Amino acid sequence: MRKEFRYPELAPYAKGEKPAGVVFKHAKVFCVFTGELLEGDLACQDGIVVGLGSYTGEKEIDCTGKVLVPGLIDAHLHMESTLVAPSRLIHAAARFGTTTYIMDPHEAANVAGMDGVSYLLEDTKDAPGNVFAMLPSCVPATAFEDNGCVLRAEDMEPYRDDPRVLGLGEVMDFPSVVSCEPSMMEKLALFQGRVIDGHAPSLTPKELQLYALAGIATDHESTTFADALEKARNGMQVLIREGSAARNLDTIVRGLVESGTELSSFSFCTDDKHIEDICREGHISYCVRRAAALGIPMAKAIQMATLHPARAYGLSHLGRLSPGAQADIVVLDDFDSFSIHSVYYRGKPVGEYPLCPVKPKDALCRTVHLAPLEESAFRLRVGEVSDGIGIVPGEILTRHVRARLPQQDGIFIPDAQWNKIAALERHHATGKIAVGAVTGFGLRGGAIASSVGHDSHNILVVGDNDADMLLAVRELERTGGGYTVVSGGQVRKTLALPILGLMSDRPHEEVDAAVKEMTQMAYRMGVDPGISPFITLSFLALPVIPALRITPRGMFDVETFSFCREVEDGSAG
Amino acid sequence: MRKEFRYPELAPYAKGEKPAGVVFKHAKVFCVFTGELLEGDLACQDGIVVGLGSYTGEKEIDCTGKVLVPGLIDAHLHMESTLVAPSRLIHAAARFGTTTYIMDPHEAANVAGMDGVSYLLEDTKDAPGNVFAMLPSCVPATAFEDNGCVLRAEDMEPYRDDPRVLGLGEVMDFPSVVSCEPSMMEKLALFQGRVIDGHAPSLTPKELQLYALAGIATDHESTTFADALEKARNGMQVLIREGSAARNLDTIVRGLVESGTELSSFSFCTDDKHIEDICREGHISYCVRRAAALGIPMAKAIQMATLHPARAYGLSHLGRLSPGAQADIVVLDDFDSFSIHSVYYRGKPVGEYPLCPVKPKDALCRTVHLAPLEESAFRLRVGEVSDGIGIVPGEILTRHVRARLPQQDGIFIPDAQWNKIAALERHHATGKIAVGAVTGFGLRGGAIASSVGHDSHNILVVGDNDADMLLAVRELERTGGGYTVVSGGQVRKTLALPILGLMSDRPHEEVDAAVKEMTQMAYRMGVDPGISPFITLSFLALPVIPALRITPRGMFDVETFSFCREVEDGSAG
Repeated sequence: MRKEFRYPELAPYAKGEKPAGVVFKHAKVFCVFTGELLEGDLACQDGIVVGLGSYTGEKEIDCTGKVLVPGLIDAHLHMESTLVAPSRLIHAAARFGTTTYIMDPHEAANVAGMDGVSYLLEDTKDAPGNVFAMLPSCVPATAFEDNGCVLRAEDMEPYRDDPRVLGLGEVMDFPSVVSCEPSMMEKLALFQGRVIDGHAPSLTPKELQLYALAGIATDHESTTFADALEKARNGMQVLIREGSAARNLDTIVRGLVESGTELSSFSFCTDDKHIEDICREGHISYCVRRAAALGIPMAKAIQMATLHPARAYGLSHLGRLSPGAQADIVVLDDFDSFSIHSVYYRGKPVGEYPLCPVKPKDALCRTVHLAPLEESAFRLRVGEVSDGIGIVPGEILTRHVRARLPQQDGIFIPDAQWNKIAALERHHATGKIAVGAVTGFGLRGGAIASSVGHDSHNILVVGDNDADMLLAVRELERTGGGYTVVSGGQVRKTLALPILGLMSDRPHEEVDAAVKEMTQMAYRMGVDPGISPFITLSFLALPVIPALRITPRGMFDVETFSFCREVEDGSAG
Repeated sequence: MRKEFRYPELAPYAKGEKPAGVVFKHAKVFCVFTGELLEGDLACQDGIVVGLGSYTGEKEIDCTGKVLVPGLIDAHLHMESTLVAPSRLIHAAARFGTTTYIMDPHEAANVAGMDGVSYLLEDTKDAPGNVFAMLPSCVPATAFEDNGCVLRAEDMEPYRDDPRVLGLGEVMDFPSVVSCEPSMMEKLALFQGRVIDGHAPSLTPKELQLYALAGIATDHESTTFADALEKARNGMQVLIREGSAARNLDTIVRGLVESGTELSSFSFCTDDKHIEDICREGHISYCVRRAAALGIPMAKAIQMATLHPARAYGLSHLGRLSPGAQADIVVLDDFDSFSIHSVYYRGKPVGEYPLCPVKPKDALCRTVHLAPLEESAFRLRVGEVSDGIGIVPGEILTRHVRARLPQQDGIFIPDAQWNKIAALERHHATGKIAVGAVTGFGLRGGAIASSVGHDSHNILVVGDNDADMLLAVRELERTGGGYTVVSGGQVRKTLALPILGLMSDRPHEEVDAAVKEMTQMAYRMGVDPGISPFITLSFLALPVIPALRITPRGMFDVETFSFCREVEDGSAG
C-alpha cells in the first residue's frame, strides 16, 4: 500500500521555520518504543507529529505537569452491536482516549454485503477516530443460512487494497479451514500477506497450529491464560477482550503477570461494548487501567493499547507519537492512574468534531422484505415427543430439550412453560418460516420480535399466540426492522432500527432508554428476569453455538450439525 | 504484496495424515514470541514449518538435547565488498547460522544500475539464504560524480513490487532530505509505506526528527549508545553494526544493559564483513554471543537477530519457527553458549546446497571503458603552494594539506614523501582524469591501481612515475577491473575483478591470498604498514567524507563542498 508523502510540506514546521499548527508546550511525552517519558514541546502540523523539542505554535497548549500518550487502539470490534450509527460510538469512545478502531463489519455485511460495509466506513469517515475494516470472512456464517448477501472472495477483491481495509475479518468457520473448503481457501489466499483475524475458542493444539499455518494472525476468543499463551506461541497476536458481556481481561492478565510472559504478542479489544458501558467505565482506557491494577507496569499496559496492535496491523503511523505519526493524543493528568485530561484526534480536540451521522442510501433502510404472511403460518403441528429450545439464563448456549409439548389435536398450544418461536427470512421475501417451541422464556399474553438475529439477521419472534406474533412481525416490516413488544392485539412499543434492520438513526441515549423500557415490559409479561429478552432472542438463530437453534429453514441441531426431522405436515419446514 | 498461499497442500502434513518431509524429533524449539523453549517434534514440509507436536517424517533427525532457533538475519549489508560473488558469502555465512540478508547493492548499482542489482539477486537466488534488496537511494552518491549509472525514482519503480525488494536503501544524502531536493523526494515518496533505510551518523536531534518524519525507519550508523537510543526514541529500528572494520556492538550493547532499555527496537547487522572474518569468528552468531556475553539474556539476544529485524522489515514468515514460517533452522548443541551444531535452510542442511555462482551477463564483465590515454595525461603542473591529500593511518578521513610540492620547472616530481594520485573515469570513456598529490602513502618505484573506488568506482592509481601509473591503468583496462601492482615497467601481480570491476569470479580463499600477497608487495615498495593500501586507495574518491578527495573531475574539498581551484594549464581538470 502506497502511503501519502507529506514530508516536503511538513519539513518547514519540523525545522521550526514556520510556527506549527498546534504545539503541546512543556509536555512529558510517553515514548512507546523505549518506555521513557521524554520532555519538550510536541509540535503538530496538519494533524501529524513533526517534532519534539523547542517549538512555537499557532496554537499553544500548556501541558505542564501533563503526560501525552498516543491515542488508544481497539484492535477488534463490531460497531453494529450498539444499535446506533457507528459514528456515535466513535464520539462516545473518543472522550475515553480511543482513536483507532479495527472493525469487523460482519453484521452489516450479512444484511447488505459490501454496501453495508461501505456504509460503516462512510459513516465513520469524519468522526474523531481512525476506522479500519477487516472484510468479513464468514458471510453467511454457515452454508445453510438465509442471510441478505453472500460475500465471496471475488466480491472482496475490489476492496482489498482500499487504504481503510487491513485484511480479512475473523475466520469463525474453523471446520472450513481444516477441511480446506474451496471458497474459504479463496478468501484466505486473497489475503495472504495482509492481516487475517481469527476466532478460535478452545481449539486443540493441533487445530490451532493448522489455523496459524493458514495465515491467521490474531485471535480474540481466549477465555483462559493457557489458551491465550498457546496462541502467542503460534505467533498470533492475542487481542485480550473486555466488552460488555465477554470479559476475559482479568483472567488473562493475571496469567501474564504471574508467568512474567513477554507482552509484545498481547493487545486489547472490546469485540462488543455498549455505549452505556463505555460511558460508565471507559473503553480501551478501562483495559489499560485494569491491566495496570492487576500488576502490568503502566508503560507496558499502554504499549498493549498502542504499539502492539499498531505493529500487528501494520499501522506504522499510529500508536506512537514520534515524527510522522498521526497526532492522536491522550493528555493525562497523571500517568500512573491513567486519568485522562483531554483527547486530540489529528491534533484537534475530539469534542470539536461535529457529530453528523451519514444518511444511509435508501436501499440500506429498506432491508426487511417479507413474503405475504397469514396467521396460519405460525401453526405448529407436534407429535408425542418434540424438539424444543431450552434457554439457559446468562448463557448464549441453549439446551436441546425433547419433550411432550402442550397440544390440542396435534397442534402446539403455548403455555406458561412453553412459548412459541418463529424465524422468518426477511431479506429476499422467500417466505421461509420455521416455527418451534422454546422453554425458559416465560412470555405470556403477547409477543416480542427482533430483526437483529445473529448472524443472518432474519426476524425472530417469540410469543404465546399467533395473532400477536403476526402483528409483531408486521410491525417490524413496517419500521424496516427493530425491536417490538406486542400484547393483546396491540403494539405496545417499537424501537425502529431502520439502518439495515440493525441500527437506529437516533442518539444512543434514546435507544438505550427504549431498550430498557421494552425490557421492563417483557419482564412484566412474564419473561424470566435472568435473561435479557432481546439479546437472548438475537442469538437463538446462531447455528454455530450449541445446542439447538432455529433458522428460517427449521430447528437446527448444532451437535449433529443438521436440521431436526420435520413433522409430517411440514409446518416446521 | 500478495504472498503465495500454500496452506491447502501443507495441511495434510500438519494434521499428520501424511509423513512430513523432515521432522526434527525430540527437539526443544525456541519460541521467539514468548521466549520459551517448547518441546516436541518440529515437522517441516516443502521447506515450511507445519507443526510442533508428535510427528513422523520421511526424514527424521534426532534432536534429543538440542535446541532449535530460527535462522539469523543480517539486517543490513553490502555484498560486493567481499570482492567475490555474493553467493560465496551466503555459503560461508550460512554455516554460522545466518539465513536471511537484507542487502543494499549500491556498489553494483553505481557501476551498472538496476542490471547490477539484478545480478546480485540472481547470483543469490539458489544459495542457502533469503536475500532481499533495498534499492539504492544515492546512486550517484552526490550530484557531481561520474559513476556508471544514475538511479532515479522512475528507474526503481518497476522493481518496487518485486517480492525480493523490501524498500529503499540507506539514505546517505542527508542534506538532500533536509533541503527537500526534488529527486530525493521522488524516491522517498515512491517508497512510503515500505521500509526506508537510513544512514545517520551524528545528526542533531532535530535533524534526526526530520529524517524520521521523511519516513526513514532504520539506521545502522550509531557508534554511541546515546545516538542509538535517540534513534529508537524516534521510532527507528537500530541495526547494531558489527562488521570487519566498524565495530559498534560492545558500546551500544553495554549501554542497553546498563540502562535496561527495552530491546524491541534493536537488531544486528554487519554492513561490511569479510569472509575471512566470518570464518574466523562467525557472522550474526558472533553478535548474538557477544551481546549475551555483555549481559543481554540469550533469549533476547536471539530475538534481536530474528524476530526484531523480521518485524522491522515486514518478513512475517522469517525469524520464527511457528506454523507457516520458512524452515530456516539453527540447531544448537547448547542454548546458553549458542554453540551451533548444524544449520538448515528451507528444511535442508545448508551444506547440501551446491555452490554455483551465476555467470554475469557479458556487459557486466566489461565495465571498464577508458578513452585513449597517453603518459602525458599524468603530468601535474603545480604552483608555489598546492593542495595535497594527507593520508591518516587507520582512518577513512584525510587531511587537506597545503604545501610546496617537489617540482621541476613547475611540474610535480614525486618523491619519498609525496606520491602522485590520479582518478580516471572508467564507465563511459569520457576521458576525464584528475591528477593530484598525496602524502602518507610512501610508494616508491612503481604504482598500484584499483577499479574499486567508493562510491562511483572509477579507477584510482597512485605511484611515483607516470609510466608505471599508465601501465597499471592499462592493466586494469585489460582485465576489466581489479587490483594491480606495477613496478619498473612491469606488472608484478593483478587480481582481476571482472564482475562490474568489483568482484572476482574465483573462490574467496584465492582472492584473499592474492590481496595479501599484493599488500605485502606494496609494503615492500615503501607503503606505510599502518595503512591497507587497496582499501585506503578505494576511499580516496569518496566526496562525502572529510577532508580532501580526488575524483575524475578534480581535487574535491569536502569542507567547502567544492572542487579546488585548478592550476593554470588545466592538467588537474
